[in-house]
Amino acid sequence: MKAEGVRRGVPDATVGRLPAYRRALGQFVERGATRVSSRELAASAGVQSAQLRKDLSFLGSYGVRGVGYDVRQLEDQITAELGLLNDWSVAIVGMGNLGRALVAFKGFSKRGFRITALIDEDPLIVGESINGITVQSLHELAKAPPVLDFAVIATPAGSANAVAEVLVDLGVRSILNFAATTLNVPAQVDVRQVDLSTELEILAFHAQRRAEVHEVVGGEAR
Amino acid sequence: MKAEGVRRGVPDATVGRLPAYRRALGQFVERGATRVSSRELAASAGVQSAQLRKDLSFLGSYGVRGVGYDVRQLEDQITAELGLLNDWSVAIVGMGNLGRALVAFKGFSKRGFRITALIDEDPLIVGESINGITVQSLHELAKAPPVLDFAVIATPAGSANAVAEVLVDLGVRSILNFAATTLNVPAQVDVRQVDLSTELEILAFHAQRRAEVHEVVGGEAR
Repeated sequence: MKAEGVRRGVPDATVGRLPAYRRALGQFVERGATRVSSRELAASAGVQSAQLRKDLSFLGSYGVRGVGYDVRQLEDQITAELGLLNDWSVAIVGMGNLGRALVAFKGFSKRGFRITALIDEDPLIVGESINGITVQSLHELAKAPPVLDFAVIATPAGSANAVAEVLVDLGVRSILNFAATTLNVPAQVDVRQVDLSTELEILAFHAQRRAEVHEVVGGEAR
Repeated sequence: MKAEGVRRGVPDATVGRLPAYRRALGQFVERGATRVSSRELAASAGVQSAQLRKDLSFLGSYGVRGVGYDVRQLEDQITAELGLLNDWSVAIVGMGNLGRALVAFKGFSKRGFRITALIDEDPLIVGESINGITVQSLHELAKAPPVLDFAVIATPAGSANAVAEVLVDLGVRSILNFAATTLNVPAQVDVRQVDLSTELEILAFHAQRRAEVHEVVGGEAR
């Protein structure tokens, strides 16, 4: 079943679409579907069906013409490919509003991510129990570090790089960064940036462009 | 100063990098720099300098050889291009942990985004005052809708499309969607997805791949 050679060659763009396919398959399962055509699945995931077929072919998965894909089997395969059958331990750093929202996020446990450490530097917050986990300082954590696969950084931008450095020393190799700054980490560390500020600015760019087009169309015939 | 023809032709990938350039320029301003070379600015933003020069040329901005860019002027220009000098009104829908974290997010006001409405459907939350704004139901909002430019959807996935439909009817044309579902909105509506689940799954994919490579290297010579 393990197709390592195949998986190693999955393009990043394809990897980026697998979560949408998995989510769409989950919806077909909920509706009781057992088979799905590439067209239906592609429409549900918001891509072209040729794109879907090509992406799935990287996983060695080919639908049967006129029959389509087995919904459960494909969902299981993508779940396994995405590494969601593992047991990953996660530290969340920064217990502000965002960090606390993340602790409550059910998507972690659904994907095999177990929150094992909560970190903050504020002495008023260290020692507090959030969802049954006692908040530690990074210094305390480093004294008796648990095995940590993932870390989520939800600190102010100014602290994020110092935090990342300690985490990497503790063995963390995958970081989800919510701080509005670029992390300078060694090449073997995988960082995904969730950047609200950038998203807002991109939206604003397009909103302004739209407003200008309206002005031109409304104000002046040309 | 307004180079609309130029701006209209800015590629999406360039628009996506402008926030990083703006952020890097802000750091140079903080350090008291007045001039910056394309190499320094590119390094700070995490791109190649050829890429930076090309991106900025879309804005009609060319550094002077041996002198570089005027830090303040370029920062102001990018800020204006990104539409951050406007006054945008924003509704946040969904007053769970994430919605409340977003209400507290200072990045909105820093960018000219004014939170004008908070929405939730839970009767226990409607009427509550959060940061001085009274939470309304979507139904209440629709009875006397304020001008809304942007909306942030922080609801469960199952409600997001129904919410988006009402918002679009109320005139919203830019949506930042945190719900783990694809929004089906008319083409003129701009949606940016902030998708924590997808980011986690992409990280897990790479983490698993790394673990497998270790296994192979450690367990078996080949």
